[in-house]
Amino acid sequence: MSKQSFQELFGSDNHCFGCGMHNGHGLRIKSFWDGDYAVAIFNPQSYHCAGSTTIVNGGILGALIDCHCNCFAIADAYKREGCEMGTNPKIWYVTANLNVSYKKPVAIDTPIYLKAVVSKIDGRKTWMSCELFSKDALCVTGEVLSIRLIDK
Amino acid sequence: MSKQSFQELFGSDNHCFGCGMHNGHGLRIKSFWDGDYAVAIFNPQSYHCAGSTTIVNGGILGALIDCHCNCFAIADAYKREGCEMGTNPKIWYVTANLNVSYKKPVAIDTPIYLKAVVSKIDGRKTWMSCELFSKDALCVTGEVLSIRLIDK
Repeated sequence: MSKQSFQELFGSDNHCFGCGMHNGHGLRIKSFWDGDYAVAIFNPQSYHCAGSTTIVNGGILGALIDCHCNCFAIADAYKREGCEMGTNPKIWYVTANLNVSYKKPVAIDTPIYLKAVVSKIDGRKTWMSCELFSKDALCVTGEVLSIRLIDK
Repeated sequence: MSKQSFQELFGSDNHCFGCGMHNGHGLRIKSFWDGDYAVAIFNPQSYHCAGSTTIVNGGILGALIDCHCNCFAIADAYKREGCEMGTNPKIWYVTANLNVSYKKPVAIDTPIYLKAVVSKIDGRKTWMSCELFSKDALCVTGEVLSIRLIDK
């Protein structure tokens, strides 16, 4: 696993609710390379609960998958171009589609583990598959399509 | 439009991040009947931003669609059974699939309008389609499958 997260390598001006390092209300997810995969560990807070206070809200889980994968698309593009993440010219992607399937409840008192892989690349489009685990069980799966913004 | 939201009719013990009335960190979305549709208006906060601080994070938009539609599935089931929402026996649904397509950026300084309709019902399963508007433009679409929990 690399030492610095994708989000730290971006720099400090990202205030995104999902992946901004400086959003005090946000999820501040940190994603790392692990071989060809992108992985992240997230510790839910009590206010991330669903209707039951013992499990995590599905919207939060979708937000984790969304930002983890979109940051992964950016990291993957830098890697394919042989550039350090965060260097100029800046590469940026946005999510075009997020498809989340909820298979099992996710406990709120346990770290969440995300593992994503790039499934397809076609020009400016990157498709990723993400698995979300809690207590070693696969609880949620997600498919994300991110599209690269045209360089300014 | 009915006077009380689906979430208020549930009662006060729902602390869900998306739709709990008493989650101070949550979105506290309020959904209402409008004919056969379920509608909601949400005012984003500055910390709901994306990478750009002028637009709303996609994960938050997914969370809005998720909770708006899942609460709609519950309200629709009560209605089909001719019961007041929130009365016993309690009806509860959970989201099984959330599929969100992001078409245009959603401004953070403008109220968001959600409009959902039930597209199919098969036993315990309810499928809904949701449109999300900002400044009268359709910005995001969502498809949600919710499944009714078996009565205890």
